[in-house]
Amino acid sequence: MYSNLDNYFSDMSKRAKKSAIRELLKLTKEPGIISFAGGLPAPETFPVEELREVTEEVLKNEAAFALQYGTTEGDDLLREQLVKRYQEMGLKITKENLVITTASQQSLDFLGRVFINKGDKVIVEFPSYLGALQAFNAFGANPIGIPSDEHGMDPKLLEAKLAELAANGEQVKFMYIIPDFQNPSGVTMPEFRRKEIIEIAHKYHVLIVEDSPYRELRFEGEAQPTIYQLDKEGTTITLGTFSKIFVPGFRIGWVIADPKIIDKFVTTKQSVDLCTPPFVQRIAGRYMEKGLFSTKLGDIIRLYKHKKDLMMDCFEKYLPEGVKWTNPEGGLFLFVYLPEHMDAEKLFKIAIANKVAFVLGTVFYCDGSGKNTLRINFSYCSDEQIVEGVKRLGQAIREYKD
Amino acid sequence: MYSNLDNYFSDMSKRAKKSAIRELLKLTKEPGIISFAGGLPAPETFPVEELREVTEEVLKNEAAFALQYGTTEGDDLLREQLVKRYQEMGLKITKENLVITTASQQSLDFLGRVFINKGDKVIVEFPSYLGALQAFNAFGANPIGIPSDEHGMDPKLLEAKLAELAANGEQVKFMYIIPDFQNPSGVTMPEFRRKEIIEIAHKYHVLIVEDSPYRELRFEGEAQPTIYQLDKEGTTITLGTFSKIFVPGFRIGWVIADPKIIDKFVTTKQSVDLCTPPFVQRIAGRYMEKGLFSTKLGDIIRLYKHKKDLMMDCFEKYLPEGVKWTNPEGGLFLFVYLPEHMDAEKLFKIAIANKVAFVLGTVFYCDGSGKNTLRINFSYCSDEQIVEGVKRLGQAIREYKD
Repeated sequence: MYSNLDNYFSDMSKRAKKSAIRELLKLTKEPGIISFAGGLPAPETFPVEELREVTEEVLKNEAAFALQYGTTEGDDLLREQLVKRYQEMGLKITKENLVITTASQQSLDFLGRVFINKGDKVIVEFPSYLGALQAFNAFGANPIGIPSDEHGMDPKLLEAKLAELAANGEQVKFMYIIPDFQNPSGVTMPEFRRKEIIEIAHKYHVLIVEDSPYRELRFEGEAQPTIYQLDKEGTTITLGTFSKIFVPGFRIGWVIADPKIIDKFVTTKQSVDLCTPPFVQRIAGRYMEKGLFSTKLGDIIRLYKHKKDLMMDCFEKYLPEGVKWTNPEGGLFLFVYLPEHMDAEKLFKIAIANKVAFVLGTVFYCDGSGKNTLRINFSYCSDEQIVEGVKRLGQAIREYKD
Repeated sequence: MYSNLDNYFSDMSKRAKKSAIRELLKLTKEPGIISFAGGLPAPETFPVEELREVTEEVLKNEAAFALQYGTTEGDDLLREQLVKRYQEMGLKITKENLVITTASQQSLDFLGRVFINKGDKVIVEFPSYLGALQAFNAFGANPIGIPSDEHGMDPKLLEAKLAELAANGEQVKFMYIIPDFQNPSGVTMPEFRRKEIIEIAHKYHVLIVEDSPYRELRFEGEAQPTIYQLDKEGTTITLGTFSKIFVPGFRIGWVIADPKIIDKFVTTKQSVDLCTPPFVQRIAGRYMEKGLFSTKLGDIIRLYKHKKDLMMDCFEKYLPEGVKWTNPEGGLFLFVYLPEHMDAEKLFKIAIANKVAFVLGTVFYCDGSGKNTLRINFSYCSDEQIVEGVKRLGQAIREYKD
């Protein structure tokens, strides 16, 4: 190999860093560790029997189609089924508003690819999803974090920042929002806050990205309307995925937006991977068509609600005074706030010694703040692991010394 | 929507054009048209029964694994099977040399993403694969086409161009070569030519990309060693895919290279789509493990050889004097040279009127030359369609008037 190989790599490739989460996850896989670090759905929620049946039918009846190349936009049947589901939620969309992606990470990559020139500013929540921050960073985005309260992004701080940028003649391309059971915070944005954010976005001509992978996993409280349907100007781009509500192993996601934007995503996708595997798209389409999707979703919700409630009980019992946490109405994650003086990275080492793991909250803050926070996943561990894991976490916090 | 939406799109997105092939393909789908334009494998080659069995087993025995998130590098079993196959061909590689991609188009996109800064020069063959040209173009590459003879890229012209660039202090990042049954030309590079090209690449410190999607589809003649194994410096990156030798609907490809390069591809893939669908990877891995891959490959080769031979016969019978064509030893495509004065785009319209279609050869020339060439696919049409289609093509050429 040429000795100066580094000179061959592109600037984009040099910006790409290995995921902090993925690298940390390796540490958490030591034997005996109870890990609240991952974001995996519980495998017992996978509808294996139903998939055996549907897959068998697809291979029996339409193999020549499902095993061939597909269109870049995605399988028509699947797109129709998804559109129908969103129409039932109240979205006024047709197939022209939706493109299938190779799951949400590809949708996030496409946002960077389609909108971001190096140095472009984008608004993100404090904290925000690491995978999104990485995807935008690959294109040289300059993310600006806006602090959140118990209802999500703070509209006053958002408006102040946008006004300041506008005064400097700077255009923000989009704001990236996870409105439902946010990853990592677990917070849901109520309708009134969504409306405030939309109004500000329109005033400053900023596109809105609504990333909602967990929306259908609501345990309690009332579903809030999507930003997409509240946005009467059509400036919202909504991302969805099957990874948390069906199976991650199919790698199917989608983007909903104005057809002019969808068209750009499709052109991008032609050059990026031509199409998402038609085989899994057709299986997913038939699965939805049979009504299996809605039926199974109830089971997932019941299971996760149980796990979340159990975790809340354990937190109350085993975490020391001064530690606070969010109590999400759905999703897979909650956020823990240690007392201000504590450093979650220091705690992480003590936790690993106690055989329990979490994700450092700081990786979700684009400026590296949030040092006293942790993200906890409650979807993957068994009941026994949740109880024992929280005990160990409580023990680790007690062992922490400044 | 904001009235100045175009201002929101990135430079990269503005460079992306809809695929000329894909747009032309729409024209060729009118009823009654016999199309030699596509690049689809024949659906009768899909091993449907075998896949029903293997898929059923995967869902029965390892659903929790196959339906969950996977590692970015790809399924270990599949990587082991692929490595074994390449080792049998004589490549000295291990799993560390191979990453799974969401098929070849993603590998091509990654080449652009990992190596190309806007304006970077890359060497391509005249003609070369359109999907590669598009992928490199997305990153602002400046492709330089080197004319080919019956053995592939001309080494004298290649060296002259590299010497000229070196004299100007310009570094070429890689040269992109399709050595086996090239798309679109059908030409195979013999071992001596591969060695000449490798030597020149090393002399000018250029990485070599060997894209070989059809390598295993050899009908006649002797397999040539891969560039990867001939390159003793380890500067070659080899791309493979299941799309033409198994099924395209799984969207599985791979990249083989020095681990330092694979590492960059893995980091890129984390941000781009996390992982290729584990479900199809595991099915493909088990399919290979059972030895089904090699068995079925023989059937595909026999079928395509028959189709190619039939097409050669028909060309001899029905194409007018002055038209020349390549006679590939494998693969899916051949190239037709009209007399120099003829314009394939003008012929295309006459051909469509005669209900037969092909791809304009010019789309494969990065400088828009090759006006008198056409690409013909022989893998997809039935025997009857091949005979009738070539008759119509002959008729269209006869109707052509300058």
